[in-house]
Amino acid sequence: MPDTLLQCAFSTTEMTAATSDQAWLQAMLDFEAALAQAQAEVGILPATAAQAISAQCHAERFDINELGRQTANGGNPAIPVVTALTGLLPEHARGHVHHGATSQDVIDSAIMRMLRHALPLILADLEAIEASCAELAANHRYTLMAGRTLLQQGPPITFGLKAAGWLANVRRARRDLQARRQQDLVVQFGGAVGTLAPLGDNGVAVLSVLARQLGLAEPELPWHSTPDHLLRIGSTLAIVASALAKIAEDVALLMQTEIGELSDPNAGGSSSMPHKRNPVAATLTLAAARRTHGLVGELFSASIQEHERAIGGWHAQWQPLFDCLRQTAAAAHHMAGLTSRLIVNSKRMHANLWHTQGVTLAEAAKSLLAPKLGRDQAHQLVAAACNTALQDARPLVDVLAESATVSAHIKAQTLRDTLQPQHYTGSAQRFIDRVLADNHA
Amino acid sequence: MPDTLLQCAFSTTEMTAATSDQAWLQAMLDFEAALAQAQAEVGILPATAAQAISAQCHAERFDINELGRQTANGGNPAIPVVTALTGLLPEHARGHVHHGATSQDVIDSAIMRMLRHALPLILADLEAIEASCAELAANHRYTLMAGRTLLQQGPPITFGLKAAGWLANVRRARRDLQARRQQDLVVQFGGAVGTLAPLGDNGVAVLSVLARQLGLAEPELPWHSTPDHLLRIGSTLAIVASALAKIAEDVALLMQTEIGELSDPNAGGSSSMPHKRNPVAATLTLAAARRTHGLVGELFSASIQEHERAIGGWHAQWQPLFDCLRQTAAAAHHMAGLTSRLIVNSKRMHANLWHTQGVTLAEAAKSLLAPKLGRDQAHQLVAAACNTALQDARPLVDVLAESATVSAHIKAQTLRDTLQPQHYTGSAQRFIDRVLADNHA
Amino acid sequence: MPDTLLQCAFSTTEMTAATSDQAWLQAMLDFEAALAQAQAEVGILPATAAQAISAQCHAERFDINELGRQTANGGNPAIPVVTALTGLLPEHARGHVHHGATSQDVIDSAIMRMLRHALPLILADLEAIEASCAELAANHRYTLMAGRTLLQQGPPITFGLKAAGWLANVRRARRDLQARRQQDLVVQFGGAVGTLAPLGDNGVAVLSVLARQLGLAEPELPWHSTPDHLLRIGSTLAIVASALAKIAEDVALLMQTEIGELSDPNAGGSSSMPHKRNPVAATLTLAAARRTHGLVGELFSASIQEHERAIGGWHAQWQPLFDCLRQTAAAAHHMAGLTSRLIVNSKRMHANLWHTQGVTLAEAAKSLLAPKLGRDQAHQLVAAACNTALQDARPLVDVLAESATVSAHIKAQTLRDTLQPQHYTGSAQRFIDRVLADNHA
Amino acid sequence: MPDTLLQCAFSTTEMTAATSDQAWLQAMLDFEAALAQAQAEVGILPATAAQAISAQCHAERFDINELGRQTANGGNPAIPVVTALTGLLPEHARGHVHHGATSQDVIDSAIMRMLRHALPLILADLEAIEASCAELAANHRYTLMAGRTLLQQGPPITFGLKAAGWLANVRRARRDLQARRQQDLVVQFGGAVGTLAPLGDNGVAVLSVLARQLGLAEPELPWHSTPDHLLRIGSTLAIVASALAKIAEDVALLMQTEIGELSDPNAGGSSSMPHKRNPVAATLTLAAARRTHGLVGELFSASIQEHERAIGGWHAQWQPLFDCLRQTAAAAHHMAGLTSRLIVNSKRMHANLWHTQGVTLAEAAKSLLAPKLGRDQAHQLVAAACNTALQDARPLVDVLAESATVSAHIKAQTLRDTLQPQHYTGSAQRFIDRVLADNHA
Repeated sequence: MPDTLLQCAFSTTEMTAATSDQAWLQAMLDFEAALAQAQAEVGILPATAAQAISAQCHAERFDINELGRQTANGGNPAIPVVTALTGLLPEHARGHVHHGATSQDVIDSAIMRMLRHALPLILADLEAIEASCAELAANHRYTLMAGRTLLQQGPPITFGLKAAGWLANVRRARRDLQARRQQDLVVQFGGAVGTLAPLGDNGVAVLSVLARQLGLAEPELPWHSTPDHLLRIGSTLAIVASALAKIAEDVALLMQTEIGELSDPNAGGSSSMPHKRNPVAATLTLAAARRTHGLVGELFSASIQEHERAIGGWHAQWQPLFDCLRQTAAAAHHMAGLTSRLIVNSKRMHANLWHTQGVTLAEAAKSLLAPKLGRDQAHQLVAAACNTALQDARPLVDVLAESATVSAHIKAQTLRDTLQPQHYTGSAQRFIDRVLADNHA
Repeated sequence: MPDTLLQCAFSTTEMTAATSDQAWLQAMLDFEAALAQAQAEVGILPATAAQAISAQCHAERFDINELGRQTANGGNPAIPVVTALTGLLPEHARGHVHHGATSQDVIDSAIMRMLRHALPLILADLEAIEASCAELAANHRYTLMAGRTLLQQGPPITFGLKAAGWLANVRRARRDLQARRQQDLVVQFGGAVGTLAPLGDNGVAVLSVLARQLGLAEPELPWHSTPDHLLRIGSTLAIVASALAKIAEDVALLMQTEIGELSDPNAGGSSSMPHKRNPVAATLTLAAARRTHGLVGELFSASIQEHERAIGGWHAQWQPLFDCLRQTAAAAHHMAGLTSRLIVNSKRMHANLWHTQGVTLAEAAKSLLAPKLGRDQAHQLVAAACNTALQDARPLVDVLAESATVSAHIKAQTLRDTLQPQHYTGSAQRFIDRVLADNHA
Repeated sequence: MPDTLLQCAFSTTEMTAATSDQAWLQAMLDFEAALAQAQAEVGILPATAAQAISAQCHAERFDINELGRQTANGGNPAIPVVTALTGLLPEHARGHVHHGATSQDVIDSAIMRMLRHALPLILADLEAIEASCAELAANHRYTLMAGRTLLQQGPPITFGLKAAGWLANVRRARRDLQARRQQDLVVQFGGAVGTLAPLGDNGVAVLSVLARQLGLAEPELPWHSTPDHLLRIGSTLAIVASALAKIAEDVALLMQTEIGELSDPNAGGSSSMPHKRNPVAATLTLAAARRTHGLVGELFSASIQEHERAIGGWHAQWQPLFDCLRQTAAAAHHMAGLTSRLIVNSKRMHANLWHTQGVTLAEAAKSLLAPKLGRDQAHQLVAAACNTALQDARPLVDVLAESATVSAHIKAQTLRDTLQPQHYTGSAQRFIDRVLADNHA
Repeated sequence: MPDTLLQCAFSTTEMTAATSDQAWLQAMLDFEAALAQAQAEVGILPATAAQAISAQCHAERFDINELGRQTANGGNPAIPVVTALTGLLPEHARGHVHHGATSQDVIDSAIMRMLRHALPLILADLEAIEASCAELAANHRYTLMAGRTLLQQGPPITFGLKAAGWLANVRRARRDLQARRQQDLVVQFGGAVGTLAPLGDNGVAVLSVLARQLGLAEPELPWHSTPDHLLRIGSTLAIVASALAKIAEDVALLMQTEIGELSDPNAGGSSSMPHKRNPVAATLTLAAARRTHGLVGELFSASIQEHERAIGGWHAQWQPLFDCLRQTAAAAHHMAGLTSRLIVNSKRMHANLWHTQGVTLAEAAKSLLAPKLGRDQAHQLVAAACNTALQDARPLVDVLAESATVSAHIKAQTLRDTLQPQHYTGSAQRFIDRVLADNHA
């Protein structure tokens, strides 16, 4: 599969490891070891058997290719794993492996264990992005640039305000993901039909110890065919990815040749075109985010699961979830790099701000004149001046300054002061303060 | 549009009203009224103007068809609404309408207001479903039935356990939706580019009063191009819908002619086939839930929004969100009805349980014999007995009872007791208790 | 529902009518009339009964609100329609209505009839777009502009080449949609389980006449639970929408304030910002196209349908299909308008082409020098010249012209000729010719 | 990554190879070799250089891990591949590698080459499935079973009719996929911005030879940012997968313990439950099909691509397309196996048919009596008899036979003949004939 060619672009080294065959196998073996130990602790399995089982629960003793070949027979990898593990055991321990458990117990719990390692990889990059955005917001709180709506210039903002918006958005998504990690990593243990019948009266006791051993939360009852935990995790990953893609989209647009307000020093070069600075980090982030949206759709599509354990719905969740983790990790990694090294070209921001002769400040001029001329006359006068400014390619402020009507009411200096972008950013500083003041937790 | 033909099947009367043109328009007018009042309270707009504006903010004074025709010109309904509202005002108030706001402020805040009314409609039905499921769980905690995995019979469960699983799943989803209602209904107010520049230093003060007036939360800064609140609400609605569809899927399968364990007294009849009991409520719930999955995918697809306000992404969210509310409301309504009237046919459950001569209890037999015969011999003996039972269509317990090996070690009565389904439900009662004991909040 | 407020933005008047309740009801009645007539023609139903039935098959005689209220009972609108139609009939004809048919026969065939009217609405706009693009391609075949990749300027293209690409893409999609119209509009008629048992030996004969009467293709056998025709139609609509959104995306980006190469005279204005030209048509097209992607996903999600007629899957298709038609029609309508009125600002195209001092032509310079200097030395010389050009903000051709090495080998005029964008457009004219020469059919 | 553990379940050995890193790399190298040869043939590149390039175009000479590490730098694997290939060449050939091409040319053409090998793998399995279904349709054309709608029994069908429906559906999908293979496998070659400028006047000539050499179709012009070919291929794969999942869903439902009409001799067993026959092939097919629906959604989501070559949209297509191929191949493989070995239990079909005492034939009884009693009285009499039959658990025919009204008008033998399922299958045989007669091509 082309995964090796793409895994550095669409995953990270750490996430590739955390979602590898090896990791999944080890997590399944961790479940089997913990299950035996929990049953020994509860007293329904000899301690020696638990020790013997734990002793073999090391992924490197298993042949992943062979396990893979056998997965198609039963439809999931737990069956061959348990068979192979049993084969490694001394006689006395064999009857105690996987006692009371079903394949889904192993696989779901293993996935939860993998998430326990995988989510912090993403969370760490999100925190780094927040720190970089906070720095950008603080450093550029007064760096003026054009606000843009529907891809057209509007009134001015500061780049610090934009970075504060990125920060607030990533932070909300990161806090969500932390909440998911705390609340939705839940052990799965119910046996064939969710009753834990083979354990008689000891089912709940084993469940509790098992959850503790695996560092996972304990559910009220098995959740074999109600995969809402995975839906919450998946959709939160997709929300994270959207937050990252928002930054990527803004950066890519602001890196356009004709705009040039931001640049990425790690932009991809070209042998034939020395000027070319491809926004590679942004590109891969956008691609990864779009993939997560489809992958979480797959999770939803697989989420209506019938009876005690489902046909197909369960099986359709594994790959989308792993892919979702990889794509989100890649996006977080690319954006952590990009936000940390982003070059802000405040001169170009300033130049672009004046691209339309200052007509984006027409509203400010109107507010100044309205008390003197009345609202309607003020509006007409300013609108005419804007048209003149654009047609003659002269600053709006100069056009207005020539108007006898204007100069009859407004001092030239007042007019010039009012039509400065830095005087028309409203609550930008207050908003930046509010975002920066938010407790980082 | 075919909405009238389908709106009772794929919405509820209340939700249709809560997401109607009328409701949206009124919510936009509520925003304009609250904005004027907030600005009056802060002291930047005459109280008389605020009163004059509020006095006209009634949807019935507007022509929705005409507003709809004008929506395409500017791309959103806020522009014609503001124009029409202005036209209704006395001269002195006209200049004060919509002051400092942009179309997206009106529309997003209006949608949040609509959600404030719409989500409780769904929540109420979810609570009713939980109550019905709790009753089913309590009343049928000992009603034995076959557990089923991959559409094959497995060991026994009780219907109460199944209902407890439904309850726990719906409750988790409902609590999520409540959390969304408390945390993600956030006012939108930022003006053209999120600075509230026309309000000078008063932007944040107006924002606070406005949020309070509308009963919405106040954001750190405007969230024009970071629609994560809507993503969280949409994905939570889809999780709710999946939880409802899980019940629908189980019921529909258990209503199959050959299974007949559940029935819906409101099932759809047929003029030609008197026996036909179509599971209509389950059908419409499954259809509605599948739709929500696609609709939330649309929200994600629209979620990467550039710059201060986006081209297309924003506009692509309105219809999917409204449709998502309607579909989820329909699903909740259908399931509230179904769970309240569901007929449980415990005789058929019992009969089906014995459909395979009790071989689903083979594991229990093996556990009984293993201490006497050793694990391997016990397994072989029971497996052979199962084959005999199935081939000869005789109960497994009878086949085993005839075995000299078995009777040499196990008393006949012990054997019969062990192979009773009611003695092989493990922790089912404990799980039911845990679910029922959970605080309802 | 907010459909009236949005229906001009996210549908067209004609498509709204073609997918209205009224249209759906009439199409169902058309089916019932055609069925009676077909059965009369085959001789299994009295001609007088067929006439009596046809005489009542007019939508305006039915109360859509009442039909809608009853739809939820049986789960589809066909049941109340047939009941209401029967109520309108004289005694002698009542027993002959809907003979041998099932609800799905009515609804699916009605939807196919609606598609027969609805698809040409879209096809007509697509052909108009192709004509406009062909004109743009022809008129602007030599209008130079910057090619752009990954949002960075690359070597030059002409605007005619871009328009030819739009044309070829829309044409492929339109031809697909025509093929769908010719091949996938198939009558549905199978009765309860697809055997047409109530018609005895006459089932196939009636099927053939019915198909002919309705102007639909005749299937090999009923396709109640194999909705591939709808999947093909839906995915083709989404491909059409993507082709339209490609134009919208290009136009919106080229309308950016700083780029200004295209403009839309119908752009949305702003009362406060006289310079603002919002790309409304492009915006709504992008929003509509994104919606179709999700809607076709809903169709796929509903496409796995069990047994002879499915629970839920069938019911989940109606609204997404109608919405998909509306969104695609809106996109086609907006783009037909936009491409017909698009203003091409060739001066800005020329100015932007030189935004980076002509370094996008470095490759041409290198090709010129390589035969003289060797490939490596040519590359180094040109790369250094590019850096100088960018740093000093001087045209690359001037920098190169000053180089003694260059002037030793290349005449000044040759150099200037080579570094003209119009001499570096390769096969652009050939490609335009190929696209324009393609038979329009 | 967990691909090895899952690749036998969610791909086939052949498809895993056809979509492997190795295959992708080789296809990229094939492009480079063919490009050099085409340029040599056209006379713009020395034949010796073309030979030298071709000589190195073997995947095994490259280090895939190293290429993968470098992919993230430029955002796609073509850049490191070209660099590495250049490094293997003699001095004289180096300047001629990849001449005039851009990364997207290599990657898109390579993917098209891969599809050329990959699609026939799926097509072969589809043809095998059709052959098996044709055999089932022919062999079981008279095997009666209950028709089922909304998961409730309806009137009878034959299993042959069901198999004919599967066949027709798979065949339509297979023919579509063949059409895609013939029409949508199109070479990509446009250079940086689609003009092939570095080739001067020779661009189109090289394009034609290149297409021929690679066995791909020649486009009118480059399609860098109009990926409709991939959308058509992807959506057709998803339609194929739905057709396969329809069989899987039917089989899984008919394998239910209580129904038992079909069985899969390769069903997955269980150590503890000797009776358990898990429908593994059906399960994996359903899971795979659901995945394809999400994956094609990803392709659509990535399909709106701006300017000459897009940021992100292009990159987001590779993995979903490969995954879509693997999932569809797995589904086809599982279903080819299943349909070839499916065991039809006609006794259980017969028994289930009588599960409701023959009331599913009420319509036939009514038709018999209506001419004698009038339609209304016939309906009431039969309806009452059905209720009696169900309540007393006696065959409907017996209940009716006891009615004096019935026996006054209808001979006992006529009644019994009419109420035989085999006499109430309408056009089933005709439909089977039509499907079987369809030319296989």
